[in-house]
Amino acid sequence: MKIIGGPSSLDLAKKISDLLGLPLVKVRTKRFPDGEFYFKFEEDISGENLLIVQSLYPPQDVHAMELFLILHTARDLGAETIRVFAPYLAYSRQDERYLEGECLSAAMIAEVIEGLGADALYTIDVHNENVLKMYKIPVYNLTAAGELARYFLSRDLRNPIVIAPDDEDLAKRRARYAAKVLNADWDSLEKRRDRYTGEITTFAKELEVKDRDAIIIDDIISTGKTTANAAKILRDQGARRIFAGVSHALLLGDSVKLIMDSGVNEIVGTDSVANEYAKVSVAPILARALKGDIEQV
Amino acid sequence: MKIIGGPSSLDLAKKISDLLGLPLVKVRTKRFPDGEFYFKFEEDISGENLLIVQSLYPPQDVHAMELFLILHTARDLGAETIRVFAPYLAYSRQDERYLEGECLSAAMIAEVIEGLGADALYTIDVHNENVLKMYKIPVYNLTAAGELARYFLSRDLRNPIVIAPDDEDLAKRRARYAAKVLNADWDSLEKRRDRYTGEITTFAKELEVKDRDAIIIDDIISTGKTTANAAKILRDQGARRIFAGVSHALLLGDSVKLIMDSGVNEIVGTDSVANEYAKVSVAPILARALKGDIEQV
Repeated sequence: MKIIGGPSSLDLAKKISDLLGLPLVKVRTKRFPDGEFYFKFEEDISGENLLIVQSLYPPQDVHAMELFLILHTARDLGAETIRVFAPYLAYSRQDERYLEGECLSAAMIAEVIEGLGADALYTIDVHNENVLKMYKIPVYNLTAAGELARYFLSRDLRNPIVIAPDDEDLAKRRARYAAKVLNADWDSLEKRRDRYTGEITTFAKELEVKDRDAIIIDDIISTGKTTANAAKILRDQGARRIFAGVSHALLLGDSVKLIMDSGVNEIVGTDSVANEYAKVSVAPILARALKGDIEQV
Repeated sequence: MKIIGGPSSLDLAKKISDLLGLPLVKVRTKRFPDGEFYFKFEEDISGENLLIVQSLYPPQDVHAMELFLILHTARDLGAETIRVFAPYLAYSRQDERYLEGECLSAAMIAEVIEGLGADALYTIDVHNENVLKMYKIPVYNLTAAGELARYFLSRDLRNPIVIAPDDEDLAKRRARYAAKVLNADWDSLEKRRDRYTGEITTFAKELEVKDRDAIIIDDIISTGKTTANAAKILRDQGARRIFAGVSHALLLGDSVKLIMDSGVNEIVGTDSVANEYAKVSVAPILARALKGDIEQV
């Protein structure tokens, strides 16, 4: 197998290549003056088994189109099999029609990725598991909760407790998984979305966090409101230090300030999103998955 | 038939709706805080014949993804037929593999538009006619050369001559078409692309433009270099006034300054690209085409 680093995930592709001892395919990419994407394989890939690494973090439309164009070219030029690793799978919010007439964005993404020739999709902590059902090809929803937890082992934790910021099944499974790696307790907050305003409120449930290091484990930080609300509750209840470990650190707008002001000591993301908070790599998770060790919650 | 205005072409869709006396479908669009596109039909479109109007000018990837998501929703919700009007068809440059290993971007766009359920595609002055062969569905490549020419009738032209800025067949056909509408002469310049640097040179061919109003008719202005070079040649040879009529006025960066400094008196684009140079509408061209009057060069 050979690895293709898409424009959004060059470093991650390099790490996967190093970990597995598999070569990176030489490619050339550029943008034309008008903004159109140009892609070219600099070597023959016909008959090869390929892994395209391209995360779909913002700007999602740009990164998705890049993936589509690379996929199309790989299939057109005779790749034998094409696996896609999109650690952050954009448009995973719209997984069902909450209102009549709505676009099923996740289904469009699935249809195009499959139609353009992907044989399997690997992703990390998808926001909504319903999205996985939209694929006919095998989809592996891996988790970064374990790798994030291992990162915090270096932080000299005192009596740690892992916190899921809401009580949805998937959030709780991730927290439980991280807690197991840390040999720690875990608990969850409750999050409610106002049906009319869409406003999310995190309820101040009683937690046993006094004088303990609390680690919030979540799949995504966008506006940072959920993390900040959770941190305030933990702070109010006497937590010693508060860490936020997140698979996809989108960190939009002034979210970092919001989170740090709420009392969080450190934000830790993964290289699912290429920014300064990518302190944990998802490369080992994918490397293990390709060897058959699928890490899931 | 009912008309859907995509985010890139709301005004154009309204004009088409007015011209044909066909209703606009009520839709709701927004961007989530993280940048993802949201689309919703506000009325039942099952069993309807639809026309989606969405031009793919820059940012092309954003406008293309919007089109894909709208198409997917329309098909999913049971539209009877779906026509797409994309006056500016992005990614029409990469129509063949000039170098081994290159992406056929135009083919990817064609495959996705068809795969997501379009029954026919209408476009305006495609940059490269090879692109049309990539579609299995009917594609109508209409021309705006006539509408652009008619605009200049209001400019009190003196002994006008239409100029194609290069001598490719398609460029000359457009110039000839515009000249016929204006009852004017036409001629063409010669453009050569350096095989190694990619640099384009317009040759100073002898033209009969002295004291005449010259109208450059082209499909696209991107960086403006071609138009500026052509204008300089026309100016040097004594043209009275120089107009630039263009189907797709992308007008990147400082192209407008470059063009105006070269001696062009007025730039006229169409609403294929929603900017201040959209002085001519392509709505009548599409309206006539839907009635069977296909305007082509």
